[in-house]
Amino acid sequence: MPGSSFGKIFSISTFGESHGPAIGVIIDGCPPGIQIDEDFIQSEMDKRRPGQSKIVTQRKESDKVEIMSGVFEGKTTGTPIMLLIKNEDQRSKDYSHIKDKFRPSHADYTYQAKYGFRDYRGGGRSSARETAARVAAGAIAKLVLAQYNIQIFAHVSGVGSIQAPNLEKVPYSTLLEMRENNMVRCVDPATAHQMIECIEKVRKSGDTIGGRIQAKIMGVPAGLGEPVFDKLHADLGKAMLSINAVHGFEYGSGFEGSKMLGSEHNDIFFKSTGENGDTIHTHTNFSGGIQGGISNGMDIEFNVAFKPVATIMKNQSTLDRDGNETEISGKGRHDPCVVPRAVIIVEAMSALVVLDHLLRQKSYFSV
Amino acid sequence: MPGSSFGKIFSISTFGESHGPAIGVIIDGCPPGIQIDEDFIQSEMDKRRPGQSKIVTQRKESDKVEIMSGVFEGKTTGTPIMLLIKNEDQRSKDYSHIKDKFRPSHADYTYQAKYGFRDYRGGGRSSARETAARVAAGAIAKLVLAQYNIQIFAHVSGVGSIQAPNLEKVPYSTLLEMRENNMVRCVDPATAHQMIECIEKVRKSGDTIGGRIQAKIMGVPAGLGEPVFDKLHADLGKAMLSINAVHGFEYGSGFEGSKMLGSEHNDIFFKSTGENGDTIHTHTNFSGGIQGGISNGMDIEFNVAFKPVATIMKNQSTLDRDGNETEISGKGRHDPCVVPRAVIIVEAMSALVVLDHLLRQKSYFSV
Amino acid sequence: MPGSSFGKIFSISTFGESHGPAIGVIIDGCPPGIQIDEDFIQSEMDKRRPGQSKIVTQRKESDKVEIMSGVFEGKTTGTPIMLLIKNEDQRSKDYSHIKDKFRPSHADYTYQAKYGFRDYRGGGRSSARETAARVAAGAIAKLVLAQYNIQIFAHVSGVGSIQAPNLEKVPYSTLLEMRENNMVRCVDPATAHQMIECIEKVRKSGDTIGGRIQAKIMGVPAGLGEPVFDKLHADLGKAMLSINAVHGFEYGSGFEGSKMLGSEHNDIFFKSTGENGDTIHTHTNFSGGIQGGISNGMDIEFNVAFKPVATIMKNQSTLDRDGNETEISGKGRHDPCVVPRAVIIVEAMSALVVLDHLLRQKSYFSV
Amino acid sequence: MPGSSFGKIFSISTFGESHGPAIGVIIDGCPPGIQIDEDFIQSEMDKRRPGQSKIVTQRKESDKVEIMSGVFEGKTTGTPIMLLIKNEDQRSKDYSHIKDKFRPSHADYTYQAKYGFRDYRGGGRSSARETAARVAAGAIAKLVLAQYNIQIFAHVSGVGSIQAPNLEKVPYSTLLEMRENNMVRCVDPATAHQMIECIEKVRKSGDTIGGRIQAKIMGVPAGLGEPVFDKLHADLGKAMLSINAVHGFEYGSGFEGSKMLGSEHNDIFFKSTGENGDTIHTHTNFSGGIQGGISNGMDIEFNVAFKPVATIMKNQSTLDRDGNETEISGKGRHDPCVVPRAVIIVEAMSALVVLDHLLRQKSYFSV
Repeated sequence: MPGSSFGKIFSISTFGESHGPAIGVIIDGCPPGIQIDEDFIQSEMDKRRPGQSKIVTQRKESDKVEIMSGVFEGKTTGTPIMLLIKNEDQRSKDYSHIKDKFRPSHADYTYQAKYGFRDYRGGGRSSARETAARVAAGAIAKLVLAQYNIQIFAHVSGVGSIQAPNLEKVPYSTLLEMRENNMVRCVDPATAHQMIECIEKVRKSGDTIGGRIQAKIMGVPAGLGEPVFDKLHADLGKAMLSINAVHGFEYGSGFEGSKMLGSEHNDIFFKSTGENGDTIHTHTNFSGGIQGGISNGMDIEFNVAFKPVATIMKNQSTLDRDGNETEISGKGRHDPCVVPRAVIIVEAMSALVVLDHLLRQKSYFSV
Repeated sequence: MPGSSFGKIFSISTFGESHGPAIGVIIDGCPPGIQIDEDFIQSEMDKRRPGQSKIVTQRKESDKVEIMSGVFEGKTTGTPIMLLIKNEDQRSKDYSHIKDKFRPSHADYTYQAKYGFRDYRGGGRSSARETAARVAAGAIAKLVLAQYNIQIFAHVSGVGSIQAPNLEKVPYSTLLEMRENNMVRCVDPATAHQMIECIEKVRKSGDTIGGRIQAKIMGVPAGLGEPVFDKLHADLGKAMLSINAVHGFEYGSGFEGSKMLGSEHNDIFFKSTGENGDTIHTHTNFSGGIQGGISNGMDIEFNVAFKPVATIMKNQSTLDRDGNETEISGKGRHDPCVVPRAVIIVEAMSALVVLDHLLRQKSYFSV
Repeated sequence: MPGSSFGKIFSISTFGESHGPAIGVIIDGCPPGIQIDEDFIQSEMDKRRPGQSKIVTQRKESDKVEIMSGVFEGKTTGTPIMLLIKNEDQRSKDYSHIKDKFRPSHADYTYQAKYGFRDYRGGGRSSARETAARVAAGAIAKLVLAQYNIQIFAHVSGVGSIQAPNLEKVPYSTLLEMRENNMVRCVDPATAHQMIECIEKVRKSGDTIGGRIQAKIMGVPAGLGEPVFDKLHADLGKAMLSINAVHGFEYGSGFEGSKMLGSEHNDIFFKSTGENGDTIHTHTNFSGGIQGGISNGMDIEFNVAFKPVATIMKNQSTLDRDGNETEISGKGRHDPCVVPRAVIIVEAMSALVVLDHLLRQKSYFSV
Repeated sequence: MPGSSFGKIFSISTFGESHGPAIGVIIDGCPPGIQIDEDFIQSEMDKRRPGQSKIVTQRKESDKVEIMSGVFEGKTTGTPIMLLIKNEDQRSKDYSHIKDKFRPSHADYTYQAKYGFRDYRGGGRSSARETAARVAAGAIAKLVLAQYNIQIFAHVSGVGSIQAPNLEKVPYSTLLEMRENNMVRCVDPATAHQMIECIEKVRKSGDTIGGRIQAKIMGVPAGLGEPVFDKLHADLGKAMLSINAVHGFEYGSGFEGSKMLGSEHNDIFFKSTGENGDTIHTHTNFSGGIQGGISNGMDIEFNVAFKPVATIMKNQSTLDRDGNETEISGKGRHDPCVVPRAVIIVEAMSALVVLDHLLRQKSYFSV
């Protein structure tokens, strides 16, 4: 049963393999009349694109997005938006070295078990190339969210054992600028420097390393998220866990919160009076901006853990399709650490979830 | 837009507030011909039931499940199964102390913001009482899974800073017996003893404490889970995050895995030959039984973090509905720590996810 | 895969067999703050109820609706509304005469083929008793629609070869009064008289007869319905065809329209100026109020065809479960013609479709 | 909320406007290992293609299908199949004559009302060009169904008042050959001749005419379809009603059945013994192969009514966007009668429904 669609109102369906003619996405349910800024979409794509710095894979893909439908005279029409991204850098390389072998901690064996059959070229559908379609859709979602002054931000908070300090309370534009100042996309310059050194070292040794991304969503009005199963953080969690290589998700106090006392953990409400009247806040934000599955108007905050990339440049023992023992070694151009490029994927998936819940809420009331 | 349904083929829809006449669930999509063991269903309910030990809430609810449809002559018919659980212990108590106040870190404020209106009695729909319906549905799912020899197990692995050792490789029945030997539901007796002492102490101080649950699903065939958005662990993650008080989910190596090197983390395949022919395994299981979102035949393993219960027996400052500062103090009978009762909820949600994916996979091939 | 849910935002899930303890429905997605008029709900149920006149089945069911959740202090809360209808008149009769026999043109054989197993008591899940749950849900939908001044009306337009004249342009309240003036629920008194005589004659001969229902939905704003698959009339058509015994659906010009020329059939626009400014209308309404799948503000009009009830009081030859030839004859209390009671079911399903599309449209804009 | 997807397991999502760069479809949920015959897909497209005979529109579109994903070495992989159809014949014509005018009985006004905005070029998303994507997806569905020996057939049974005799009991291949023998796609040669003359005459007068299509699905096993809302005929009905210009659907006895007595209408079961053992049939087939919403193994039979095409070559009065009275006259190349080309669309939608229900049934049991 199909699993390539996401979202209930702002709904996306992706398609494509890394070595087919193209990948892409249909967005159905986008509100009409949204001005589409193609340069913005492309700038988002460029943050995920291979080859952008020395610490990511050196494959060459321009990841140019073509709008095939749903936009007329620069504005969304309310009908499905189809975004097509042609595959370019399909080296006519010999895949025989992996055709019949199961790469360790890849999806080769499980696809074979599931479908009895697999497109072995470059991981096929299990390739992280699929996430390019998410970033394209996420860019459209961000354009809609901008109309509601909702801002989505993520950065690399950890590489291996290196951990960045918590995000400071600075404006979105500052965060963005600080993050884009370095190639690892960590807001803190000193930590970024350490991370880059670490990744470089790992890459040279033919190895890979895991990492963590921290996200913050600002400007979400109170009231988004549904009780029970479609809690806002449950949908965010599913969204993050659906990204390749993600092994963990926590929001607000997260795993550390499970060690705390209720009297420490409860977020105490207070009121502030500003230009737009009274606003309700909490002194602490262990709830991560979500209470009972519904946004409370505070910043939404969560962390995502990524395992190390499975493709390493070292020999590993494995099995072939007939169950015989064999050896395999990584070839080609791979990321030593996914998090610098995954930052934009985390943002894209966040945008999809928040926008979908915003539109869901509009079916009750106008937001 | 509704959020009270879960699952695509084995689909459940829950209803009910803590202080209405009843709560319950419709299960649609249950295969026909499954023998329904009502004693088993009730024994599952009893593990979630309030009042079962001194370290849980002392409310009295028998949580008796009545089957209203979908079962004929003891067997499922393939049509919707409705399970009704009447509410009993609705003390006609005075709720005026919370009617107009927002309890800190509860869903009072967010429900008000979302709906403009809320059933304030005992938390209404946001009450953890809703999870009784999940346990009832999960019991039916377990009866179906038993036919496929799939076994689901969870236990309390952490309370506050106390952490149990990793689960040993022992049979399901042994795990179950060891867990039910103590009231905190931790497999390790020494750790269980510490946990109980800790919870008792916290309870006496009028406070609450967080905890962690570890789960293990045995006997899942390779091939369950869908690529891209409906990855098996993404659906498990959403299921867990939809349980009240959950703040984190990780599978396999989890957050720790994000600190590892690829060469350490990759799970190397090997083959063993048994009665039923060759089987493919991995030496380590950092993948937690799931690769590329699809089960690989190894045990599925994950951890869930629960925040401390928000209701404490201490005075806290807060706001009322009009934004005035006020005080609130917990009343009534509440859990000092949710994890002992939540173990069965984690199992129930796991059963729902795995069964749904099993039936989804059957639409491609027979399993 | 489950088929007991209907609607995307205002979504209902029904359960129950004719001879189990109860039937009912969960409504998820009802907007909060709607005043619930229980007398109105019951009056709707009474129009579908058996035993209301001499031309319908004489079974006795009070069809009392109990609200189990989702309503607080008389108003909807936005959470799932569970409506329970207990089964009362379950004569402990002997079903052995149909247990192993396939009644002609019933669902006995197909349920057996589908599930390998069936609840043979009174048709089980295939019993038209299931529609009581739809009427209850439809009553809630009508209460919401009333806030938008949308009115739903249906009447019996045909019994056998007897056909009522087209509905005159009179107010909703007049239509309702005229319809409830006679037991067959046809607006035209002379036709109603003929229909009643016909049904009486058919009933006395132990036979049954088919009929037709015409529906009209007034006050629907332009813009409801989705292009492509979820066209408003496609969802209305599915809704009607899902009612037991329905064999046909047409809207606007319907089957007759397929004989017309474009120059005759095109509905010409004109503008009228009223209190609320200009309104766009069409001179004719062959489009039945829907163009390109989207409402155009004119009355929505459609017809539904019901086959004759399959249970007749005559001997028929058939097969038993083992494929042996046998005989069967109808027993019990059955409707000679379903349309007088089905009028309210057609209205209920119409209300569900229109409200669902109204809420879907609100996710784009406020209506 | 999105309405561009159809099907629950074999699920399609279409996109595209008549005058954008391309239209197309993603199929998600196609079983793996199906051999894809591209010539067959193209031959299906050619039956819907404009310009194929003198009685259809003379636009030139080659409607070449490009497979962008989901097929590897000629076989489906189980992952999404994306089919792209580029738009070719987009005459750079002046649309100013319809830009601000609402064409009578088109979707111009309703799109404007719904979205506040529309792509006016050639009808945009409301153009019947969208059905090309359905035919492409239907071709894939037919390839899967062929493995189960399920055959889908439709032909033109009526044009205006001309009505073909009922289909004779002849094999599928004979029906197909007889139908393709004439350009109007009616199995009966004499009737076909009359129909062609009628359409020619209508075309010359600048007018259009409605018509009817009869469909027959052979080889469907008993047991497909879900009780209650997702009855097999309810899903077929929705599928047909979602096709542009369809105003009516009836199955089995249809509207005529509503005039019959139960004693005439009931289909009496009998058993025949053949090579594959006993088979259960009915003497008559007023049920149209579906009882209680579930297939009974007999041929599934239904009729679909199409209104006359709205674009006529005559002057009509109408309103412009500002509500001013104006005139409009049809330009360009349009169909005088849609049914000859719609035959293949009816087949495609039938294939999608039947395959989806076949896969749904497999989640209970293997078929």
